[in-house]
Amino acid sequence: MKALEERIVKEGKVLPGNVLKVGSFLNQQIDVALLFDMGAEVARLYANCGVSKVLTVEASGIAFAVAVAHAMGVDAVFAKKNKSSNVSGDVLSAKVHSYTHGTDFDIIVPKDYIKPEDKVLIVDDFLANGCALEGLASIVSAAGATTVGAAIEIEKGFQHGGDALREKGMRVESLAIIESMENGVLRFRN
Amino acid sequence: MKALEERIVKEGKVLPGNVLKVGSFLNQQIDVALLFDMGAEVARLYANCGVSKVLTVEASGIAFAVAVAHAMGVDAVFAKKNKSSNVSGDVLSAKVHSYTHGTDFDIIVPKDYIKPEDKVLIVDDFLANGCALEGLASIVSAAGATTVGAAIEIEKGFQHGGDALREKGMRVESLAIIESMENGVLRFRN
Repeated sequence: MKALEERIVKEGKVLPGNVLKVGSFLNQQIDVALLFDMGAEVARLYANCGVSKVLTVEASGIAFAVAVAHAMGVDAVFAKKNKSSNVSGDVLSAKVHSYTHGTDFDIIVPKDYIKPEDKVLIVDDFLANGCALEGLASIVSAAGATTVGAAIEIEKGFQHGGDALREKGMRVESLAIIESMENGVLRFRN
Repeated sequence: MKALEERIVKEGKVLPGNVLKVGSFLNQQIDVALLFDMGAEVARLYANCGVSKVLTVEASGIAFAVAVAHAMGVDAVFAKKNKSSNVSGDVLSAKVHSYTHGTDFDIIVPKDYIKPEDKVLIVDDFLANGCALEGLASIVSAAGATTVGAAIEIEKGFQHGGDALREKGMRVESLAIIESMENGVLRFRN
């Protein structure tokens, strides 16, 4: 998506450890007009796929999930990262490794939020090694539901998590795929 | 807001410790149509107030902030709860006490996301004692900006945080105010 790539080039900051900071327009501060254009683009890509629910993981996936769900006219669900006092009853869970924070964490969704008949679109802000996506897909499987595919704001193509998932047969649509960011220079996949 | 009150009565669950669980339509699972109706109602309440930015705190405030910001045609900002490796540079912060989790935490916003000329609408999912709202308002003050008011999905009126803030002169608009929830019976303020 051209408008997103241009914005990443203009405002994204490359930090040590291949961290791309887009907090000024896609994370802690959100350009809501751009976000809803991105949601509409995902709705176009997954039109006629029967998507009945959008699934993401807190916290940075929530804004994108809301914009996508709004464009598709369906509800959104987000997995929580820890069992809090506000989650009760039977839950579906998966373990995810965070390379950013160097830790493992559980992602949790109450069982009755994903029904066996649901066709789920998984969305997230970043895709690097694909751990979060795999965890979310395993939750969909455990619910007996179907993963239609995934929609990602920004994929780090050089970390190959997206390609590995595509080889396994998952449809993964990323609005921007960064092929390399060496020496702070961003190059996108065509 | 009638539709919200009706939904709370229909699906909300009262747990021990005056916890109201609305996870099936306003938190982990989001009824996106209702959420955007709520965003439109907030935009109506704060029309012609010159709001230039919507501010909330992660994670459960993000969805509402996005819906409100979309309805008002402005950008959204969310405070993070801990200094993570993705936040760099100068930040504004405030300490907040969580009665739900029984802990203190810092909320953090990069300095350049709130400008002195900003007129900020603070939004959140719940208002009980008002600690999160006060923390967010102190961040707006520290940025030299103006808090126009607050918009809340559900206020627990019996915990009086909202009334205390109104007495101090803050405009606080809550889409539903629960006056009591004794024995699991919900009563709303008129």
